[in-house]
Amino acid sequence: MEPGHTAVTNTQLHEPSRCQIVSGVLARIGDKWSVLVVMQLGAGSRRFSELKRAIGSISQRMLTLTLRGLERDGLVTRTVTPSIPPRVDYELTELGRSLLDPVQAIGSWAIGNHEKITVAQQAFDARGD
Amino acid sequence: MEPGHTAVTNTQLHEPSRCQIVSGVLARIGDKWSVLVVMQLGAGSRRFSELKRAIGSISQRMLTLTLRGLERDGLVTRTVTPSIPPRVDYELTELGRSLLDPVQAIGSWAIGNHEKITVAQQAFDARGD
Repeated sequence: MEPGHTAVTNTQLHEPSRCQIVSGVLARIGDKWSVLVVMQLGAGSRRFSELKRAIGSISQRMLTLTLRGLERDGLVTRTVTPSIPPRVDYELTELGRSLLDPVQAIGSWAIGNHEKITVAQQAFDARGD
Repeated sequence: MEPGHTAVTNTQLHEPSRCQIVSGVLARIGDKWSVLVVMQLGAGSRRFSELKRAIGSISQRMLTLTLRGLERDGLVTRTVTPSIPPRVDYELTELGRSLLDPVQAIGSWAIGNHEKITVAQQAFDARGD
C-alpha cells in the first residue's frame, strides 16, 4: 500500500508550494458558478439576462458576483452599450479563452461520470459507515 | 458584440440540462480541497498524515471531510491496516484516476497563469469601479 509514496507524477503539481498557488487560483476559478459562466461564454459573448436564463439555478446576485470576480481576474470583459435601456455584454478575454479547454475537460468528465458517482454515493450511504 | 450568441461550441456543455448535471458534480469535486487531494493521490497512495503535511493549509477536520466526500463519490478508497497504531491509507479508484487528467489540466493552467491573474486583479482594484 506504501509504494506509490515516492512515485513521481508527470507534472510536479503535488509539490506543496505549487499546491498553494493552485489552491489560490482554484478558490476563485474553481467554484461551480465560475466554471458554468466560462462554459457559457465559450460559445461567444452573452448578455447578463442570457447567462441568467442559460444557467437557470443561479441567483441574480450570485451571477453578478461571479461575473465581477471573473472580470477582476482578467478572464471576462464587460462592455456597456449606452442604448436605452443600456446593454451589457460579457465576453471571454484571451486569458479566459485559454481556460476553456481545461474547464470543458472537467465538464465533459462530469457529464460522462455523474451516474457512476451517484451509484457510488448510494452504495456508500447504504453501508452507513 | 452579439454574433457569438448563436455560435456552437465543440461540445454541448452550454445546454441548460447539462449545465445542471455539471453543476451538481462540480459542487462536489470542483472545490479546491478535493482537487488538491486528488492531485496528491495522483502520485500513489497516501496516509492521512502525509496528505495533511503535503497540503499544508488544510485543517484536520477539512481533510477528513474532503476524504470522506471523495470516498462517498467513489473516487478514493480508504484502507485501514489493523496495526498498532492502526494505519489508514487513501488511494484513487479507477474512477478517481480518470479524473486526474482534467484536474491536472486545471492545475497546470493555474500554475501557468496565476501571475496574469494577479496583474489583472491589481489593475481592476486600481480602477476602483
